[in-house]
Amino acid sequence: MEALDYHAEERRKAEFDVEEMKIVWAGSRQAYEISDRVARLVASDPVFRKDNRTMLSRKDLFKDTLRKAAHAWKRIIELRLSEEEASKLRFFVDQPVFTDLHWGMFIPAIKGQGNEEQQQKWLPMAYKMQIIGCYAQTELGHGSNVQGLETTATFDPETDEFVIHSPTLTSSKWWPGGLGKVSTHALVYARLITDGQDHGVHGFIVQLRSLDDHLPLPGITVGDIGMKFGSGAYNSMDNGVLRFDHVRIPRDQMLMGVSQVTREGKFMQSDVPRQLVYGTMVYVRQKIVADASCALSRAVCIATRYSAVRRQFGSHNGGPETQVIDYKTQQSRLFPLLASAYAFRFVGEWLKWLYTDVTRRLEANDFSTLPEVHACTAGLKSVTTSATADAIEECRKLCGGHGYLSSSGLPELFAVYVPACTYEGDNVVLLLQVSRFLMKTVSQLGSGKKPVGTIAYMGRSEHLLQCRCEVERAEDWLKPNVILEAFEARAARMSVTCAKNLNNFPNQEEGFAQLATDLAEAAVAHVQLIIVSKFIEKLHQDIPGKGVKRQLEILFNVYALSLLHKHLGDFVASGCITPKQGALANEQLRLLYSQVRPNAIALVDAFNYTDHYLGSVLGRYDGNVYPKLYEEAWKDPLNETVVPDGYHDYIRPILKQHIRVARL
Amino acid sequence: MEALDYHAEERRKAEFDVEEMKIVWAGSRQAYEISDRVARLVASDPVFRKDNRTMLSRKDLFKDTLRKAAHAWKRIIELRLSEEEASKLRFFVDQPVFTDLHWGMFIPAIKGQGNEEQQQKWLPMAYKMQIIGCYAQTELGHGSNVQGLETTATFDPETDEFVIHSPTLTSSKWWPGGLGKVSTHALVYARLITDGQDHGVHGFIVQLRSLDDHLPLPGITVGDIGMKFGSGAYNSMDNGVLRFDHVRIPRDQMLMGVSQVTREGKFMQSDVPRQLVYGTMVYVRQKIVADASCALSRAVCIATRYSAVRRQFGSHNGGPETQVIDYKTQQSRLFPLLASAYAFRFVGEWLKWLYTDVTRRLEANDFSTLPEVHACTAGLKSVTTSATADAIEECRKLCGGHGYLSSSGLPELFAVYVPACTYEGDNVVLLLQVSRFLMKTVSQLGSGKKPVGTIAYMGRSEHLLQCRCEVERAEDWLKPNVILEAFEARAARMSVTCAKNLNNFPNQEEGFAQLATDLAEAAVAHVQLIIVSKFIEKLHQDIPGKGVKRQLEILFNVYALSLLHKHLGDFVASGCITPKQGALANEQLRLLYSQVRPNAIALVDAFNYTDHYLGSVLGRYDGNVYPKLYEEAWKDPLNETVVPDGYHDYIRPILKQHIRVARL
Repeated sequence: MEALDYHAEERRKAEFDVEEMKIVWAGSRQAYEISDRVARLVASDPVFRKDNRTMLSRKDLFKDTLRKAAHAWKRIIELRLSEEEASKLRFFVDQPVFTDLHWGMFIPAIKGQGNEEQQQKWLPMAYKMQIIGCYAQTELGHGSNVQGLETTATFDPETDEFVIHSPTLTSSKWWPGGLGKVSTHALVYARLITDGQDHGVHGFIVQLRSLDDHLPLPGITVGDIGMKFGSGAYNSMDNGVLRFDHVRIPRDQMLMGVSQVTREGKFMQSDVPRQLVYGTMVYVRQKIVADASCALSRAVCIATRYSAVRRQFGSHNGGPETQVIDYKTQQSRLFPLLASAYAFRFVGEWLKWLYTDVTRRLEANDFSTLPEVHACTAGLKSVTTSATADAIEECRKLCGGHGYLSSSGLPELFAVYVPACTYEGDNVVLLLQVSRFLMKTVSQLGSGKKPVGTIAYMGRSEHLLQCRCEVERAEDWLKPNVILEAFEARAARMSVTCAKNLNNFPNQEEGFAQLATDLAEAAVAHVQLIIVSKFIEKLHQDIPGKGVKRQLEILFNVYALSLLHKHLGDFVASGCITPKQGALANEQLRLLYSQVRPNAIALVDAFNYTDHYLGSVLGRYDGNVYPKLYEEAWKDPLNETVVPDGYHDYIRPILKQHIRVARL
Repeated sequence: MEALDYHAEERRKAEFDVEEMKIVWAGSRQAYEISDRVARLVASDPVFRKDNRTMLSRKDLFKDTLRKAAHAWKRIIELRLSEEEASKLRFFVDQPVFTDLHWGMFIPAIKGQGNEEQQQKWLPMAYKMQIIGCYAQTELGHGSNVQGLETTATFDPETDEFVIHSPTLTSSKWWPGGLGKVSTHALVYARLITDGQDHGVHGFIVQLRSLDDHLPLPGITVGDIGMKFGSGAYNSMDNGVLRFDHVRIPRDQMLMGVSQVTREGKFMQSDVPRQLVYGTMVYVRQKIVADASCALSRAVCIATRYSAVRRQFGSHNGGPETQVIDYKTQQSRLFPLLASAYAFRFVGEWLKWLYTDVTRRLEANDFSTLPEVHACTAGLKSVTTSATADAIEECRKLCGGHGYLSSSGLPELFAVYVPACTYEGDNVVLLLQVSRFLMKTVSQLGSGKKPVGTIAYMGRSEHLLQCRCEVERAEDWLKPNVILEAFEARAARMSVTCAKNLNNFPNQEEGFAQLATDLAEAAVAHVQLIIVSKFIEKLHQDIPGKGVKRQLEILFNVYALSLLHKHLGDFVASGCITPKQGALANEQLRLLYSQVRPNAIALVDAFNYTDHYLGSVLGRYDGNVYPKLYEEAWKDPLNETVVPDGYHDYIRPILKQHIRVARL
């Protein structure tokens, strides 16, 4: 018996080898195989079902999450999964939970900031999960400004201990995931005070709960901070609040990899350069960019498949109506997002490489690329997460009314994704950091210091400030070099203009404050150029498989030209292109959409997502949408009874005109 | 004892009379007084509390909603509220419920589409709520394309009845609010079939549930369609699914105001012009625009107040940090939204007038303005709801991490608002309707037919296509006429360019399909011009109160110039302004932000929202944010126990390394 597949016809249309594209998407054959195997493992395990998640009360949802986490850990042990496989398994379980922080923040921070003894003592316990840790940095009053944290860690030389304390309400730790109900330990960031002197913020390992009965230890007040955006979504996580009332910990629980406090209470900076922490930062951010491409591709997969199922208007002589994916308005909203998913994937892949490169350099005491790497990762984190958050909501709207149903999967995906715009650096704050780097680069032009890496184009700024785009016909916009130069010219000109305008202010800081919005826009232009150029680099790689490279070329052009259209004001106002050339780009874009159209379903199939992971009736692989939507509806708790609870008390008195005497 | 007010200092800064601004916002002193009184009534009634709403299970939330609806009805009767007051009361209860559809759709449709007998029979019952009605139009397979609905109403001349039937799965009614669990009656839209002939879609009054025991009548399958976006939010509404298995209703339950079916089964168009239904449409859309300004102003109020509470970075010598509202990046995102709230309010007010004007004209058989009115209301619905949905999410992001908490009120506001982009006409579909009107107008230029109303500027297109903006200094951008002409020129040029490009296609329809995106952008330009011009008209009115007019002028300039910056590509590429003029506009905008800043808190106070209606800890009138956030957290069900449910089964086995033998 052949399986039902409403998308079969769409799949036959594809002009490229989908199996090869799956490998391109995964990064390598091996990565593809691991991912494929683990995804199926998760999808077939009834404990991991999640289709009822948005209907659960907070308590039931939380208990269900604990069960999944325990089951995942059990499976990881039973199947002797590698670290990579275990991490994939947690990824596909797809429910935020304390282990995300334990593995993703607590352990890496001890590795990165602890000294050797500390690593030997704490890591084995953490690896076996004999202790469960979280990362307690953010406070009620301080997020972005880490240096403003108020929690104190005061050294007491008499007992050789630190006294951890929350001096104000706003110093309460607030937000750390896994803190509210689960973690036994926390990495607490607090102001180090020795002998009355404040040495700024450092990390301390603090036990929070008894390992016997899970009760909070003396002096510790801890709980959950309450409901967050959406149903299901991040409410599976126990983001927590934590207050210390003079809690004492031994001196050796301050992370001493970088700085130390001696037995006498003397504060010492280690000879290990502080820059080493940048390695961790690059690691975390490359992961965030990779996650952006996952979340975006997931939303795009749902919207693309449903756009091929949904038909509306355009019936001729009683024939079927037009698939909404055939409308140009749908294509012009959807296909740039599809192209962005690939673009973010490739820049994320490159960031992975950058991390190993930086690590190698740091080990060789080469800090030369750090400012550029910092700007580039900060910018990519900001631009990809902002674009992804917007894109998920756009995909939801592209699904029309039915996208509003929880069963479409898109509301929960949006709600669970949006914090990425805020955590690990607020996206606007990060853009301003990028712009400071850009302004510094501009100011050093001509000083003989050559810009490197992603900012190398600034070395050609003399050319870029006066070059003219040579596009004469729409198809000229297909040339990667033409696009690249337009993006370089735009980024360079916006930066140089900002730098000039800064000079109109009495001092640099006032200028930065006043021109912040322009500076942020210049930063976006720089980051979009990075993404465009990394996509071009990808196209220069050897890409096997019938038609695969051709598809990527089309997607590249869609990505770049749709950006150009969106930011037309930048390009035209800075004189990089003429209005006529802008119109030609738009014309070319329309032609490109027609080339994407027959391949659209196959291009999202290449993400290789299981129906379990997608979690969307609209995005089902087989396209059997309407019967399943109908089926899902009846599962709602409200449908347990035909006459709703409350009828006799609140509806009948109205209908029977007894409302005046009703006791409500 | 003086009440706590952390915003007192901010309020003292205001340079205008807030009390007078409240009246401007409300539209009149009377409207202000009613609104103020009813809002307080609701806020002080414990039955209407909603701070725990996002924590309730679907069933508990629904029961709570039924209770509120019954209580609201009871209070309306007890206090003998006028229709306007009753509607305000439902508005401030602020929880979607079946009565919204009963009063907002069921009754107006009977009024608009029923004949006199039908109105006499059904309206008294509906007004007393002896029956409860909903509006069953949308089906699983058809939303935007109403003419594609599949439900049939076949006339049986033998029994003088219509047989209502759902011939396919996709013909199931899907989405109607109040249908799932409550309504006793529905206005069902179905294809009228007499003697084998299909006469298109008409409305029928169908009883769904017994008035005795609330059970569905024979042949009727009805239920709730399940969870929607968010927690709380629209889940208080029983959006429903409905299927008919040959359900019979008397002939006189077809709404016969416009068309009739005789006893013999003859279909007759009435002599009442079909255009009359446009009146209802204008009414519904002006309400949607008014709602947009409410939702937007509510989000802006929360974000503005919290931006004055939140401090981050910028401490000098241990002094307090900078209020985030003082950062230009915050201002450039927030203040255009504040200005938009006022702009939408005023255009909504004008739409109210337009409704009475249209009604008057229709009664006098004057249909001349209908196409223009249709385009204008469709466009305003689309542009204001899209902008509002985006703005709510932007306001949430402007509140940083804490905006993600349900207690901020913003997640629920977003989730409950976004369907406005889809219902009553998908926003993109509506823009395309506007653009068809624009293209028709362009094609008729020179034919002697003079464009009227909001499209009158097209009559000056010869001038607008070649005029030059005369701005030389930043302050030139403060002149309303300069702004108006730039917006007129942009709108005219975009329309004319589209019209020209359409000629490059073999036929009009192919052109419309291919250029749909450009056409939608031209429509947006036209609609933004309408909003700008109505704001200018408002400024020309007599506005009393110290400094009030001045504030509105500033807000107008912020609104217009921020749009100009956002759509710089349109303005520059079409040659309406030069890049230099664009930069000057940006410069002026920055200066305007500094003028808004001291008045920001007072400008949101002028909305006169109670803390109950705002439903946001971050947006509290008194600014006492952090202690209340802390207090709210402990109310989460997860905090009922110190050790979470699930610890013994799922956490302890991990910590104690008994996971292999754990039964999960």
